[in-house]
Amino acid sequence: MSLTTQAIVLDHRPGKNVVAEALRMTELAMEAPVEGEVLVAVRILSLDPYQRLILDEPTLVGVPLPLGAVVPGRGVGEVIESRDDAFKTGDLVFGEFGWRQRAVMPAASLRPVKPLDGKLTWELGVLGMPGVTASIALGKIGNLKAGEEVLVSSAAGAVGSTAGQIAKAAGCRIVGIAGGSDKVRQLANLGFDATLDRRAAVPLDAAIDEAMPEGIDVYFDNVGGKTLELALQRMKPGGRVILCGQLSQYGTAGSATLCDSGLILGKRLRIEGFSVRDHFDAVATHSALLRGLAVDGSLSQLETIFHGLEAGPSGLASMLAGECIGKSIVKIMQSD
Amino acid sequence: MSLTTQAIVLDHRPGKNVVAEALRMTELAMEAPVEGEVLVAVRILSLDPYQRLILDEPTLVGVPLPLGAVVPGRGVGEVIESRDDAFKTGDLVFGEFGWRQRAVMPAASLRPVKPLDGKLTWELGVLGMPGVTASIALGKIGNLKAGEEVLVSSAAGAVGSTAGQIAKAAGCRIVGIAGGSDKVRQLANLGFDATLDRRAAVPLDAAIDEAMPEGIDVYFDNVGGKTLELALQRMKPGGRVILCGQLSQYGTAGSATLCDSGLILGKRLRIEGFSVRDHFDAVATHSALLRGLAVDGSLSQLETIFHGLEAGPSGLASMLAGECIGKSIVKIMQSD
Repeated sequence: MSLTTQAIVLDHRPGKNVVAEALRMTELAMEAPVEGEVLVAVRILSLDPYQRLILDEPTLVGVPLPLGAVVPGRGVGEVIESRDDAFKTGDLVFGEFGWRQRAVMPAASLRPVKPLDGKLTWELGVLGMPGVTASIALGKIGNLKAGEEVLVSSAAGAVGSTAGQIAKAAGCRIVGIAGGSDKVRQLANLGFDATLDRRAAVPLDAAIDEAMPEGIDVYFDNVGGKTLELALQRMKPGGRVILCGQLSQYGTAGSATLCDSGLILGKRLRIEGFSVRDHFDAVATHSALLRGLAVDGSLSQLETIFHGLEAGPSGLASMLAGECIGKSIVKIMQSD
Repeated sequence: MSLTTQAIVLDHRPGKNVVAEALRMTELAMEAPVEGEVLVAVRILSLDPYQRLILDEPTLVGVPLPLGAVVPGRGVGEVIESRDDAFKTGDLVFGEFGWRQRAVMPAASLRPVKPLDGKLTWELGVLGMPGVTASIALGKIGNLKAGEEVLVSSAAGAVGSTAGQIAKAAGCRIVGIAGGSDKVRQLANLGFDATLDRRAAVPLDAAIDEAMPEGIDVYFDNVGGKTLELALQRMKPGGRVILCGQLSQYGTAGSATLCDSGLILGKRLRIEGFSVRDHFDAVATHSALLRGLAVDGSLSQLETIFHGLEAGPSGLASMLAGECIGKSIVKIMQSD
């Protein structure tokens, strides 16, 4: 029997053109699984900024995706055929499947997944890499103390919304910046003490000043650019700035932010770039911590679901345009 | 008997004018020491950038010096009359005497000093606050590993020269930036693996590239400004940038440095402002560590000595103009 799968591949480098048009759906042949491999029906795939970043040369992260290659992507799938003792048919597994409906994977590359009841998508969000990213970054750099004031940008994003909830659970006052009234409303529901809508009429600097008149202890930055500049100017002495993302800079040529080094020195600020890729040894611990928060009700997931593999490219574009709330996920329709 | 002392006081705020002319020598009356106080003949006084920074309003550090007040200053003196059991005549003590020949001090404000043989001035340099500043900053932020490459700006300064020697003792390769052939030569004698003369014909960026073709693991910054920008562009992934001083910015309006936040994130840099004032609890430990390095020959002092209290103002100006090598100290002539 010859196996095939639908997949999304890179047609041409998008440059400044529409991202979704640079990707196309195709049918790929697959070899049947051999000893040590399993065949997985992919259930959900994660949409992540890095998927955009590797489409062009040069890339901001990693190496550029070759033309014709399947867009890489993490997801959760169900084992439909196993040639390895570690897994049996029906098991749920996390893996780097790429944007495809079915994938033959080395068993050793997969991790078993035991989702909380009815919350499979959380495995890619608050309990997955975005959540773990927020948790490790706060643990390694944030040094949170109860009562401190924490500002989070892109707070309705997967990382930002988790960072805010962790800081809240740590006894901090949390202020979130997001774009649009719907996001801001959902952040309030999530427990944010104050929310700033960067699309509102009030300029962001004035909004921060009003929400945090005494300044910022910890700024969790997911956007870079002007927002980072505004936050830097408002840090309290001894403040920590976690650079975790550059959403505002994706697709732009540069990402220069004016830092007043006299201010960094005068206030003894700590500014640190963070990538979870440097901290894989801490993932298991933080994953367990997050699961605890979720079980006790301190952690919820905001999410936007796209239906069908073919919705992936436009979903990615929507996410990058800031149109999605929370974790963006593609649900694969197995009847495709 | 009425006591008097020569002292240097602030005559008017210097602004952009000559610093030395804003200070004047005067004779001040003193009360004789009462119970719990000692009379000290000041032997040496430390020249420090903060003494300039507090002469104008607003200040970069602390509060502005009131007009007519004695310029503050740390030093080492000899007890000539004691009204406290903790000290006896002839004891050497470290204290915040201010720029004066003699001072009546609360005994509780003094710390006994046991200088290494013939090295009284080291108590204000490599074994004093500059040395301790370098040591704590490297300990808290530097996270040095043997074999790493460390760049130090203002490397012929009191803090920079100590930072370089500590990094060398930790097994790092040390590169120092200084202004002028004499400084550069003295750094080489001190064990710097490479020295960059920022007054030389070769532009600094090219000089750094040649001396550190693989980039910088740790940048110990004492100057801010353009040098900081050049260093930031050349950090290795995971690099640490210690902002410990802003020499290039003193007397200028701003200290904005262009930081590429994408680069900080992409390379997961850590940039942190440091002031030893936040770390007084660590002073005793690092002071002892430095003494060990000095005794075993791993630590030497570069210094510039000005003779007589009246040389203080011009000495301060010389130091700020970058004309001094190493720790700048005023030696008080007791025959004044």
